Amino acid sequence: MPADATEVAADLGSAPMTHGSLAVVGLGPGDTSLRTPAVSAALAAATDVVGYDTYLKLAGPLRPEQRVHASDNRVELERARLAFALATDGARVVVVSSGDPGVFAMAAAVLEALDGADDARWRHVRLSILPGVSAAQAAAGLAGAPLGHDFCTLSLSDNLKPWSEIARRLELVCTADLVLALYNPRSKARPDQFGLALDLIRRHRTATTPVVLGRDIGRPDELLTVTTLAELDPAQVDMRTVVIVGSSRTKRIERPDGGCWVYTPRWY
Amino acid sequence: MPADATEVAADLGSAPMTHGSLAVVGLGPGDTSLRTPAVSAALAAATDVVGYDTYLKLAGPLRPEQRVHASDNRVELERARLAFALATDGARVVVVSSGDPGVFAMAAAVLEALDGADDARWRHVRLSILPGVSAAQAAAGLAGAPLGHDFCTLSLSDNLKPWSEIARRLELVCTADLVLALYNPRSKARPDQFGLALDLIRRHRTATTPVVLGRDIGRPDELLTVTTLAELDPAQVDMRTVVIVGSSRTKRIERPDGGCWVYTPRWY
Repeated sequence: MPADATEVAADLGSAPMTHGSLAVVGLGPGDTSLRTPAVSAALAAATDVVGYDTYLKLAGPLRPEQRVHASDNRVELERARLAFALATDGARVVVVSSGDPGVFAMAAAVLEALDGADDARWRHVRLSILPGVSAAQAAAGLAGAPLGHDFCTLSLSDNLKPWSEIARRLELVCTADLVLALYNPRSKARPDQFGLALDLIRRHRTATTPVVLGRDIGRPDELLTVTTLAELDPAQVDMRTVVIVGSSRTKRIERPDGGCWVYTPRWY
Repeated sequence: MPADATEVAADLGSAPMTHGSLAVVGLGPGDTSLRTPAVSAALAAATDVVGYDTYLKLAGPLRPEQRVHASDNRVELERARLAFALATDGARVVVVSSGDPGVFAMAAAVLEALDGADDARWRHVRLSILPGVSAAQAAAGLAGAPLGHDFCTLSLSDNLKPWSEIARRLELVCTADLVLALYNPRSKARPDQFGLALDLIRRHRTATTPVVLGRDIGRPDELLTVTTLAELDPAQVDMRTVVIVGSSRTKRIERPDGGCWVYTPRWY
């Protein structure tokens, strides 16, 4: 729809779209109060919005002339290729991720697509990656400051790396006494691996180590749970949960309302 | 200034401030386009703004009736205690951090102050921690997606932990083949430790491993440098630089403009 696209570009005072553009944006955890103005502006300027169905809903209402390209989860490379094809045709494309697109999300998939591209024109697409507040950061903020000192961010999914490598990494980062922020901890297809990861972590940390579970933080059904390594039940955890396990130094402060704060001191 | 404080509360339609509040906010890397609306709203509603001088400037213009409490760097606990004291007196206090307050910034210091508080009233202060885009995320987005797979976030400062522990952690996370996001890499007071860290990292990674240096990203003097582990010179790095060192899988894509993208594939 060249007429609409030109109007959008004109509205924003931008140069005519002789080459298309592709912005990979992080919507943040969900609530628009945690979304950067840069991302909101990119969404407003888009002619085409590409993403996993759930994240497109998170993006909020679009204008009728904005084309929406919804796809299933787990087809990241196809989605990235579609985005380049649209941008090569002159569209102003936005690819949406929840959280930060650079953290277990679409930015790496888009660059993988570019790296393997047969079409040399893809390299001339104006590409940008706009960061966002990640799920781990949103959960950490609600809980206090569990990521206040050295930490690591690991995916427990074995779709793209072998479980043996995941276990090896867990062993090493536990030995390093880092706080762990664990993404993709458990799914219906692999219900038992999170229990194996927990067994491993429990060999390194005490029973009272604080654990923060953030599920759908920043969305209407957000649920923050603070528990301990001993009490944590894998059934509390699913693919929409980010799990933060404290280091040996992570502490808990009781709150007058019955809850608690969790933080990792800056000193060691 | 109770009159002014009441006016501010009334302007915002808030409840009267019978108890004060304390929000620890992340300004993001600098540019307001990367600051969340939640943080901007907290700043607008503040009666008192507390922070390190440089970050107060980053916060942007405040209204004349908003009290500003500037302090030097490296007095985080004093700053946190001042914030609680003001909030206990009924103020609506905002403590500013650059980036994310939960990542090597003020959120942990504020909770340390609360944990060690003699004044029981501090526990009744309405405390919130509002996340922001961190320096590592902003640098990563400009460079591509170097944090696209498992990574760790470490501080190289030995102000609060011994160098032997830093070296031990580096050894373990290099063995785990994580991407490294390194904060506080080098200062005038410790010019040589970054070279020691590099020697250690170079024993684990090849010479061509991509390295991203982000200095003051999102600020007027921002400088993004993409280099390799072999070519990296410690003199390129200072306290205002975040250093991202790739894993064994991190790749580089040449760009038609002479630059390059750096990304870590999602698979292993």
